[in-house]
Amino acid sequence: MTVLVPDELALEAFEPYAALRPVLYDLKQIPSPEQQEAEAIGIGLAWVHEVVPFLRQLPNLKLVQTLFAGYEDWIGQLPSGVALSNGRGAHGRAVAEWVAATLLAHYRDLAYFNAQQAKGIWSRQIKETLDGKQVAVLGAGDLGVNAKRVLEPFGCQVTLVGRTARDGVLSLDRYRAIHGDQDVVVLLLPLSEETAGIANAAFLAGMKDGAILMNAGRGTLVDTDALIAEASSGRIKAILDVTEPEPLPDGHPLFSTPGVTVTPHIGGGTEGWLARGWKVAAQQIDQYARVGRPENLVIEAS
Amino acid sequence: MTVLVPDELALEAFEPYAALRPVLYDLKQIPSPEQQEAEAIGIGLAWVHEVVPFLRQLPNLKLVQTLFAGYEDWIGQLPSGVALSNGRGAHGRAVAEWVAATLLAHYRDLAYFNAQQAKGIWSRQIKETLDGKQVAVLGAGDLGVNAKRVLEPFGCQVTLVGRTARDGVLSLDRYRAIHGDQDVVVLLLPLSEETAGIANAAFLAGMKDGAILMNAGRGTLVDTDALIAEASSGRIKAILDVTEPEPLPDGHPLFSTPGVTVTPHIGGGTEGWLARGWKVAAQQIDQYARVGRPENLVIEAS
Repeated sequence: MTVLVPDELALEAFEPYAALRPVLYDLKQIPSPEQQEAEAIGIGLAWVHEVVPFLRQLPNLKLVQTLFAGYEDWIGQLPSGVALSNGRGAHGRAVAEWVAATLLAHYRDLAYFNAQQAKGIWSRQIKETLDGKQVAVLGAGDLGVNAKRVLEPFGCQVTLVGRTARDGVLSLDRYRAIHGDQDVVVLLLPLSEETAGIANAAFLAGMKDGAILMNAGRGTLVDTDALIAEASSGRIKAILDVTEPEPLPDGHPLFSTPGVTVTPHIGGGTEGWLARGWKVAAQQIDQYARVGRPENLVIEAS
Repeated sequence: MTVLVPDELALEAFEPYAALRPVLYDLKQIPSPEQQEAEAIGIGLAWVHEVVPFLRQLPNLKLVQTLFAGYEDWIGQLPSGVALSNGRGAHGRAVAEWVAATLLAHYRDLAYFNAQQAKGIWSRQIKETLDGKQVAVLGAGDLGVNAKRVLEPFGCQVTLVGRTARDGVLSLDRYRAIHGDQDVVVLLLPLSEETAGIANAAFLAGMKDGAILMNAGRGTLVDTDALIAEASSGRIKAILDVTEPEPLPDGHPLFSTPGVTVTPHIGGGTEGWLARGWKVAAQQIDQYARVGRPENLVIEAS
């Protein structure tokens, strides 16, 4: 089966799969006859609107494969007869690492100790700990499961919350009753009509005094103005890797809101991240070639 | 059994033990007849040289109980017939949290992103990850075991190294062969004649390029001058919670050595640390009262 891939890193990821024939493509060129045979295409860092016109020139295309978990920009954009599979599983560990790194840095106040070191001063202070805290992780997919796995050994109680209740996962509806008890609320939800703006003014007002909102899902899960208002009063804190708007314009008020930490969407982006994405992408396309349907299929063909 | 304790927090820790009668003491006062009955004494934050003259006025004393793991200052200082039990188990989780917090902050370069936020700039950069790294933890006691437990879920390979080989623990001698392969070397050893200065110039020179030395054991495990020399060249990095001298004098060169992070001995010192210490202390003294010997006995009576 012919598979279109954009670069050398992607080519390498297909080496283990003898039945797949990866062929390089260039979005700016008209597909060659060889490229037009492709049943699957892997998408790298290109924007959806750059890719769609190219897809329309591939008559045999059945599957678009991305490197990331989020796929909301693709909804309604695929040519007829084409399905989409995402990169679920590639970045969960890195995002979970971001959650743990920034949360531990917050509780242990590493920024304070860095500042003391910069002044050349030894100044002991007792700081907080993650041990014993109540942590709700909203989103029980790859990211949420990995976050729970790395946080629990620190002695915090982690509640996984998903859109539908299942073993070990509380439904969002049932979660409302314990929302006000949480020391940390981590948003790792996909963006959908149901989840957009979930962290609105009422949600934020319902958080415990001093609690921390974390967001590594999508920026539009949070009402930015409501968060700035609630955090400015000092009542809650926030650690955000995704924002609305994103990227944040230079000097945006979120950067300087007291108690708000912003990182520039680097949760999953550690060394080797693209290779990890292509590894999952190749596995998915191989699965499609063998059994007709990849495990990560998230948009059915119309 | 009468037990001397220095403050109200300590008194509370003995509430579960009906057979123990905690009595407050003041190091500056001559022990009352009631206090002189004590067989055990709990030591809080006082210095050894402040405590020893008081101990000599307690004719029935059999056990000194401390709140911390380190006990090197007590060696040779106890009155005849008096043993010492330490606070092992009280602070392992907090120290392990410090190891994870500072190591993750280092790899994810949170200091860089904090600085970008302070400038009001969104600047994405790919940083390193703990995932896949080789980590040697020297010291296989409470601290080492806890460090391994919290680090492993991040996908690093952790080797526990102790003074004596046992199941799951490599001996220090055998460790030498893999020292140069480690991305991170964490010192969580107690101080002894055998371990003092273990991280000397040869040890540091044997570390892999770009590797990280961490120390949350005792400052004198490391040759400070040798570390400054090796880190100044940019060849290795270090994250230190204990130093020699300690506290570091204002403006000491370690504070400004490139690639060296210093925190002021705050590894175990998170909210509730004294209560955690007294909880273990009360357990140990209860065990002494019941069976004649606490599990944490580290200095036998002479």
